[in-house]
Amino acid sequence: MKKVKIALLGLGNVGCGVWKILNSNKEEIQKRSGYEIEVAKILVRETKKDRGVIVPEEILTTDFNEILNDKDIKIVIEVMGGIEPAREYMLKAMDKKKHIVTANKMLLATGGDEIFEKADSMGVMFHYEASVAGGIPIINGINESLTANKVEQLYGIVNGTTNYILSKMETEGLSFKAALDEATEKGYAEADPISDIEGFDAQYKLAILSSLAFGTKIDVENVYREGITNIKSIDMDYAKEFKMVIKLLAIVKDVNGKLELRVHPTMIPKNHPLANVYDSFNAIFIKGNAVGDLMFYGRGAGDLPTGSAVVSDLISILRSNIDLENINPVVKNNLWDKKIRDIRSVESKYYIRTTVEDKPGVLGEITTILGDCGISLRSVIQRGVESPQHDKVTLVLVTHYTKEAKVIEAIDEIYELKTVKKIDNIIRIEDFKN
Amino acid sequence: MKKVKIALLGLGNVGCGVWKILNSNKEEIQKRSGYEIEVAKILVRETKKDRGVIVPEEILTTDFNEILNDKDIKIVIEVMGGIEPAREYMLKAMDKKKHIVTANKMLLATGGDEIFEKADSMGVMFHYEASVAGGIPIINGINESLTANKVEQLYGIVNGTTNYILSKMETEGLSFKAALDEATEKGYAEADPISDIEGFDAQYKLAILSSLAFGTKIDVENVYREGITNIKSIDMDYAKEFKMVIKLLAIVKDVNGKLELRVHPTMIPKNHPLANVYDSFNAIFIKGNAVGDLMFYGRGAGDLPTGSAVVSDLISILRSNIDLENINPVVKNNLWDKKIRDIRSVESKYYIRTTVEDKPGVLGEITTILGDCGISLRSVIQRGVESPQHDKVTLVLVTHYTKEAKVIEAIDEIYELKTVKKIDNIIRIEDFKN
Ligand SMILES: NC(=O)c1ccc[n+]([C@@H]2O[C@H](COP(=O)([O-])OP(=O)(O)OC[C@H]3O[C@@H](n4cnc5c(N)ncnc54)[C@H](OP(=O)(O)O)[C@@H]3O)[C@@H](O)[C@H]2O)c1
Ligand SMILES: NC(=O)c1ccc[n+]([C@@H]2O[C@H](COP(=O)([O-])OP(=O)(O)OC[C@H]3O[C@@H](n4cnc5c(N)ncnc54)[C@H](OP(=O)(O)O)[C@@H]3O)[C@@H](O)[C@H]2O)c1
Repeated sequence: MKKVKIALLGLGNVGCGVWKILNSNKEEIQKRSGYEIEVAKILVRETKKDRGVIVPEEILTTDFNEILNDKDIKIVIEVMGGIEPAREYMLKAMDKKKHIVTANKMLLATGGDEIFEKADSMGVMFHYEASVAGGIPIINGINESLTANKVEQLYGIVNGTTNYILSKMETEGLSFKAALDEATEKGYAEADPISDIEGFDAQYKLAILSSLAFGTKIDVENVYREGITNIKSIDMDYAKEFKMVIKLLAIVKDVNGKLELRVHPTMIPKNHPLANVYDSFNAIFIKGNAVGDLMFYGRGAGDLPTGSAVVSDLISILRSNIDLENINPVVKNNLWDKKIRDIRSVESKYYIRTTVEDKPGVLGEITTILGDCGISLRSVIQRGVESPQHDKVTLVLVTHYTKEAKVIEAIDEIYELKTVKKIDNIIRIEDFKN
Repeated sequence: MKKVKIALLGLGNVGCGVWKILNSNKEEIQKRSGYEIEVAKILVRETKKDRGVIVPEEILTTDFNEILNDKDIKIVIEVMGGIEPAREYMLKAMDKKKHIVTANKMLLATGGDEIFEKADSMGVMFHYEASVAGGIPIINGINESLTANKVEQLYGIVNGTTNYILSKMETEGLSFKAALDEATEKGYAEADPISDIEGFDAQYKLAILSSLAFGTKIDVENVYREGITNIKSIDMDYAKEFKMVIKLLAIVKDVNGKLELRVHPTMIPKNHPLANVYDSFNAIFIKGNAVGDLMFYGRGAGDLPTGSAVVSDLISILRSNIDLENINPVVKNNLWDKKIRDIRSVESKYYIRTTVEDKPGVLGEITTILGDCGISLRSVIQRGVESPQHDKVTLVLVTHYTKEAKVIEAIDEIYELKTVKKIDNIIRIEDFKN
């Protein structure tokens, strides 16, 4: 049996998952890769910490140079996260002809080009399946299995924390706050949950997926983003009434050659496969012009699922000839130049929840404004609100397909009305027909 | 741009799909593969037939030797189906160092070894993503993306025709016959639907998937098989009452190192992701010891979805170096020897529908037999039956987990009872907990 030495950068959540899998599935990995794998070094900040896994102390190091300068280490697995020093370490490792596996979505989404180009110029392999949707093989799926397609649309539930929160709000009627607390307690949400609940994490992932699906460079700034902090139980109730559910979707559509990129809470029909993705599960739904509708579903995070993707990447590298002088990785994110559509050009249906005075004529004023803006309504629901004076009502409007720019214009005008107390929420509705 | 010549064997459903994709997605395929692809020859039985696609007449041929002896044809795409002459043609083409893409599940499931060995010994690439579940990249998924896992269980809805029929029975209350007629009308079911409705097609596919997932040779004869022809509307009704649905599942489980392989109608909980796979869609649900629960969902048949898999395979071959003298394909179906568990050893819950005389004591007699066989009941439902004399009732029994051998024994005894008119149906229940 051939032998190979590898190194890990990081032994946190994912690093420990990788370590566990390399041990528990040793025989499978050997047979499938053809190699006996030795983890020669692991970079950490603190060698004395209890990590819940038994790792020989002598392989832990705080000095990256021990890895960099060890010629026998052929593959480096970066699972430390963050931009620096992860970026620097990967670039240096590639300069020394080491192949790379990474799970670092943030780095890929913000500075991926430099990394890809380095891999290309050094002729080393660079794999990153774990960077999006943990154990779900969506990167490989797009890069290897959908190559015959023009991808038309991609819709992802790519953040487990927010899906967990929305699931709890939907199925158990919890408030956003209570659901977030539960997610934190269960270890799904991090101490600082902003990146999840404000949609930044999903934004990174959508940038990576879109770049691959459309073979083009995507600047993460071009992904429109809204989080889920404004979703209330009452929105869940209305959604249910419309036979819909609310999910944080990462959406990219090719509309006449321009890409529309957005992350936001979305109402989707209850009978759509994505609507039945609950708890912390992730799923990515793709429409290709040949394959039609396709969905990948699974665990988007966690030590073992993410480790599964990392170790499978490692096996892919071992199955290729790691000693070949020049591998030619096909760079797939610079095949086309695609223009980006502004969010104002998006066409969608909209759910608009407002609080208005309980007076005759209010609805008339609002519908006149909508009509003047060229927006037609699909339904209107008016209900009493718990207020001391019983003088306010909730008015929910659902539009037909319309341009976002028109909605923005109309909302500005509606908000000017003296009878309108509040625009409580606006949620885009996706029926997967456009 | 590099150029490559390929040939198709067959220009039926799938062949036409491949042809259409090669034309409509020409630019994508060129950029992603790095090649301009020329279809130099297409083998058919009848060159004059109208096929709904425009193909230059001079590339159609009825003589396989024109393809075999053309040195410039580097890749052969076999989409003719059947065992012979598909088998012979593929073997001969590999002897001439041509790479192969095939969609032929029947051949792979029954005579795959010989083909794989030939590919291995000739050092040519051999891809067959389309052979299972059409456009869903499940072969690649298992072969490339789950390699870090011990697969524990796999459950597939891998036959679109039967899923369409069962969906119609469930959601529209159609009889089996009416649903089958509709499937035939829509072109989902073939003129001779036996292979689909009796589960042979699913049996082939399960043999292929299991062989890959467990790295072992699977004889298709070792896959237990039951079709859906015995499912009645009343079974659908009971399933609904139990918050379940009935699906034709292809199941493989590793039980203490032995494989349990079976295709049969199965009651599954309505809230399981597989339960929401409707119409002619396919899905494969996998439990891996690292990745956890994973599901792939999409179109299992049709010209374009199947063509998507075939053309993606073609692109994979082109991305590798097709001129390398010796590719080393990793043969993955002979890594382990696995024993097969007999169906009688399966542990499951069972739904048993019987027709019995409407007399006191009947239920007692039956439960006594079940008790004597060590089977405990979870629920019993008794209902009147439309019969002239109103002297019969339907008795539905649902068991807890029990060994199939015990159920067979009990049923034999129950059927001996004079008060028992008929054992109408026995359906295994899968709760995904065992
Ligand atoms: N967690 C998931 O489920 C998941 C899923 C998909 C992708 N990812 C990605 O995987 C990566 C790792 O995530 P994680 O959750 O495993 O992170 P984590 O638990 O915070 O672990 C980070 C590890 O890296 C080490 N490290 C960090 N900075 C270092 C430095 N400057 N020098 C040396 N060692 C350093 C830490 O060492 P110490 O332990 O000594 O502090 C720790 O072992 C991230 O890119 C993340 O986005 C995570
Ligand atoms: N249909 C699907 O959705 C689907 C999905 C997955 C996998 N598959 C697999 O794909 C393969 C093809 O299926 P299909 O539905 O495309 O079959 P099909 O429509 O029956 O087409 C078969 C083609 O092969 C040609 N052919 C058959 N025997 C031949 C012979 N002896 N010599 C020369 N040409 C011959 C036929 O020529 P003529 O046209 O001249 O008769 C026809 O063009 C099968 O292995 C099937 O299991 C199909």
